[in-house]
Amino acid sequence: MPEPASPVPEAGQEAPARVRLSFEPSGKRVSVPPGVSVFEAASWNGIAIDSTCGGHGTCRKCRVRIVDGEVPVSRLDPRAFDPDRLRQGWRLACLAQATGDLTVEVPPLSTRPKAATVGVGRQVILRPAVQKRYVELDEPSLADQTPDVERLLAALDDLEVTPDLHAYQRAGRVLREADFKVTAVVVDEALIDVEPGDTTARRYGIAYDLGTTTVVATLLDLSTGTPAAVRSMLNLQQPYGADVISRISAGMLDPSALDRLREAARDTLDQLTQEVCKQGEVAPEEVYEIALAGNATMVHIALGIDPEPLGVAPFIMAARSFPALLAADLGLRVHPRARAVVLPALGAYVGGDIVAGALATGMDRDRRVRLFIDVGTNCEIVLGNADRLLATAAPAGPAFEGAQIRCGMRAAPGAIETVRLDPATGRVELGVIGDVEPVGLCGSGLVDAVAELCRTGLLDASGRLLSPEAAAKVSPALAERLATVGDERVFVLAEAGGETVYLSQRDVRELQFAKGAISTGWRLLLEEYGVTEADIQQVLLAGSFGSYLSPASAVRIGLVPRLALPRIVSAGNVAGEGAKLALLSVQERAGALALLEEVRYVELSDRSDFNDRFVDQLAFPAG
Amino acid sequence: MPEPASPVPEAGQEAPARVRLSFEPSGKRVSVPPGVSVFEAASWNGIAIDSTCGGHGTCRKCRVRIVDGEVPVSRLDPRAFDPDRLRQGWRLACLAQATGDLTVEVPPLSTRPKAATVGVGRQVILRPAVQKRYVELDEPSLADQTPDVERLLAALDDLEVTPDLHAYQRAGRVLREADFKVTAVVVDEALIDVEPGDTTARRYGIAYDLGTTTVVATLLDLSTGTPAAVRSMLNLQQPYGADVISRISAGMLDPSALDRLREAARDTLDQLTQEVCKQGEVAPEEVYEIALAGNATMVHIALGIDPEPLGVAPFIMAARSFPALLAADLGLRVHPRARAVVLPALGAYVGGDIVAGALATGMDRDRRVRLFIDVGTNCEIVLGNADRLLATAAPAGPAFEGAQIRCGMRAAPGAIETVRLDPATGRVELGVIGDVEPVGLCGSGLVDAVAELCRTGLLDASGRLLSPEAAAKVSPALAERLATVGDERVFVLAEAGGETVYLSQRDVRELQFAKGAISTGWRLLLEEYGVTEADIQQVLLAGSFGSYLSPASAVRIGLVPRLALPRIVSAGNVAGEGAKLALLSVQERAGALALLEEVRYVELSDRSDFNDRFVDQLAFPAG
Repeated sequence: MPEPASPVPEAGQEAPARVRLSFEPSGKRVSVPPGVSVFEAASWNGIAIDSTCGGHGTCRKCRVRIVDGEVPVSRLDPRAFDPDRLRQGWRLACLAQATGDLTVEVPPLSTRPKAATVGVGRQVILRPAVQKRYVELDEPSLADQTPDVERLLAALDDLEVTPDLHAYQRAGRVLREADFKVTAVVVDEALIDVEPGDTTARRYGIAYDLGTTTVVATLLDLSTGTPAAVRSMLNLQQPYGADVISRISAGMLDPSALDRLREAARDTLDQLTQEVCKQGEVAPEEVYEIALAGNATMVHIALGIDPEPLGVAPFIMAARSFPALLAADLGLRVHPRARAVVLPALGAYVGGDIVAGALATGMDRDRRVRLFIDVGTNCEIVLGNADRLLATAAPAGPAFEGAQIRCGMRAAPGAIETVRLDPATGRVELGVIGDVEPVGLCGSGLVDAVAELCRTGLLDASGRLLSPEAAAKVSPALAERLATVGDERVFVLAEAGGETVYLSQRDVRELQFAKGAISTGWRLLLEEYGVTEADIQQVLLAGSFGSYLSPASAVRIGLVPRLALPRIVSAGNVAGEGAKLALLSVQERAGALALLEEVRYVELSDRSDFNDRFVDQLAFPAG
Repeated sequence: MPEPASPVPEAGQEAPARVRLSFEPSGKRVSVPPGVSVFEAASWNGIAIDSTCGGHGTCRKCRVRIVDGEVPVSRLDPRAFDPDRLRQGWRLACLAQATGDLTVEVPPLSTRPKAATVGVGRQVILRPAVQKRYVELDEPSLADQTPDVERLLAALDDLEVTPDLHAYQRAGRVLREADFKVTAVVVDEALIDVEPGDTTARRYGIAYDLGTTTVVATLLDLSTGTPAAVRSMLNLQQPYGADVISRISAGMLDPSALDRLREAARDTLDQLTQEVCKQGEVAPEEVYEIALAGNATMVHIALGIDPEPLGVAPFIMAARSFPALLAADLGLRVHPRARAVVLPALGAYVGGDIVAGALATGMDRDRRVRLFIDVGTNCEIVLGNADRLLATAAPAGPAFEGAQIRCGMRAAPGAIETVRLDPATGRVELGVIGDVEPVGLCGSGLVDAVAELCRTGLLDASGRLLSPEAAAKVSPALAERLATVGDERVFVLAEAGGETVYLSQRDVRELQFAKGAISTGWRLLLEEYGVTEADIQQVLLAGSFGSYLSPASAVRIGLVPRLALPRIVSAGNVAGEGAKLALLSVQERAGALALLEEVRYVELSDRSDFNDRFVDQLAFPAG
């Protein structure tokens, strides 16, 4: 696939400056924000450089040579290299800041680093924050009264860690029971525990995708990057409403509902936690860190933060990122001192789930101009490439959730999810979840049904179902399915056991509003970016709904740009993938935070031309 | 009082190097470890330099001029001074490291910093870790959707803080209830809360002296440095034994006793907390930080750390210092996110109470050679001055606690605490605590009684009570008080209501052992330091027992060096004073940690000459 030319920013737009690094001998080229270390720039882009300390400047293993470009000698370089080598350009990669373009020679690895494929084709070098070190310590004596924890820390010479009280409480007994042969459990810069004997082979984390509807937990083996177990379930907050606004409203009407909402979120997460641990045969105490991606409302509620300001204008978050959390702050029963990483949010309606998705799809690293669309009640859109990213949110309404749709339902057994019409024979082919009798229509089925009615001409470009007479001229066989319910024209999709599933004229209008909002969103974003539909190299459909959408139907109704179908990709549960990335690599985690600076949020609601454009986008594209 | 010449270190002894700073125009001279900032060096020594950020390099107010000596330009200096001023030697004091001798000109203060007198004549500039800032924020709008906590942090421009989850949870509601006029509560580098309106006038801390016997809590107004309330009570751990070894043993015999010991410590601290808050009319939630000084065993137990390794050879602590604690980690019901500072320990038997005492008496700043003795079952000794400090612990046994003494008792009502004998008249003058009938003899009374018997000649230098016949030649009147109980010679101090209080021959032996251990301790320390008794400028008697000891009697029996009595000073509850210092000043707190590096611990038990010296020291000095 040819690399597109970088789009030229319009005059007056500030493009965040990037520096370009070439790595030898691989020949890989990357661009990163200035000031990023050579080590991180390499790690972010799947280029392995030796390291045992994870880039903290202590192991002195990440030796590289600056072949071209300027990197000053850091405070630790003289300890790692003699003056000759310094003159030849040798530097520790973790302390070498890329402030200009560089060519960097990376020596062959002395150890083969582990990597995992996560997200959408992301090859990630494993650098979890969770580290374990097995040490055999000298026993103390009257001649060496070094305190227990200081003795242990002295043995972790390449780590600079601060012990948790929990580690102080455990150290004395564990050291003596295990004859001073113990494993230190370190998360980031904290010593969280001391375990008897050698437990280095066992370190786990859980990545959560805390969706409004569905919650997914993945237990990860942090030594290998592989999932040990995955479980999902409906968010127990469901009784309080299907979307975030109804959940926020529930809390506003009854403050005690807030506590119940928080407990429902925590119960959901906890139930999944116990299930994945059981399934993966891992003790909850062996889970030392968790990562969680969710929209801003879900995250606020789970952390016990009142989401009300998110739900009313001017839509204010408590914060974009929450540093220094414990899993216990989310009510999780894992290791008592397990840390929690919550993916940061760009805005009240472009949350941590979208940042996770952008991370998992490599939006900030890929050189192709790509369009990321998470389709849902609130539709989040990200556009751009490694050079520049824009994001926005478009209020699509509840059509995709099945609410407001006459025969609408959630994507559950009995839901029609695909529709195929044959105008010649009048045959209607339905794909039904669970292969049972159809009882309703879910979001992807709705899009398919409307797209097929457009294609066959039973629906005109303005979104009006033809009259039976006009329809009979187009397809006599299909026209028979046109009927009237109440005062409304409908198209009957299925009749079975007295149950009729149909698409109504008003349903079509609901979908038109949704697709109008979404396509107005990405069109305005394209303009803001200075590119056209033709410049887009790939469309990523994300989220539990977007992933099931038929690309052909999405193009047909104008929900996404008119690209060759192979370029319209179902990205899957990218929020969960992003959470996994954050667990597996501290560099990826830093990358998520960096996205807050790299992505510019474009507010659509205050654009004077939004409504005009929206009305233009209500119509369906000409066949 | 003339300054003594600095003692000359013996060959082979490493004296930690110090650099000397002269401050103009005050003319004050101080010596500090190399690398300390000019700001801290000044603060430690009561010299005020302007600052609002407390030395974090952000307020740029701490401007000084280096008149003599070399201080490189720091990264922030060019933002604070133009090139001319830089050439003239102007620097920010908090970033100016003193690596060599300096003369520093301090401009007049633009604001008068508050100071408090704490400890033994220590004048301390108030720089508590607890800071409050009242801010009036712009209300958010669609044009300015800055998240709540980020909006608040932006207003705290001279502080770099990380919010606790608690602050995230509170911010949204408090900001809106208080029309965005709020007070940020900062402890060190954490934003712990957001309070409605202007609460800057109210910030409190509690300093605890967690003694084995007695626990004292002082509620401090951190804005003024003045105590708002003080309360003391017996440690509720008393039922588990009088000294640390019996408490440790209780836990070893029955692991469940450990939990009960911890709860007893916490109940004691909590009861005092509620009492001082009530007395001081302060809500517990207004207490944002606490500081605690205690011996290593008390601290370990209170933190839930098994103290067993402290109690058996080779006597190992979990750690010397415990960073990053919450008051809640000690079970204290104050502000839920209040921080806790636990004074660090030098060793298993030279604990945080002694470090606090050394801090409160300025052992590391005073240029006089001083001897600090905390008299108790375990006797801690510190010797030295600003240039060099040594410490040791001597096992004095339980004599001073009244245990093993026939008529011994704790210093409580009815205890004889002073004794005066008149050999001519036979009159015995007793000071009794509470002015009631005497029922026993406490530690200071024991020392007084033995000292008086020595002075009057009824006790010979070897510690033997004279026979009635021999005594009659010395003082016929007092000789009448010699009697026999069981097979033991005794001296009757009081007979009242059938109750006889006497001093037995074996009691004298117990005291001899105690004073032998103590005087062996300080004598060996003097040798190690390279000075003689005559070089000592001051003796500080510390601890609840030491403070009540009669200097004259202490000299008489050889417990302390033979100095002019005004130079033997009762230092009082210096552990509690040290805890107060740590609360009032982050510089003092850092000073306590620095003591771990500055004080060299001398182990006496492995010295081959200890026993010989001990036996030599059993005898009482010749009259």
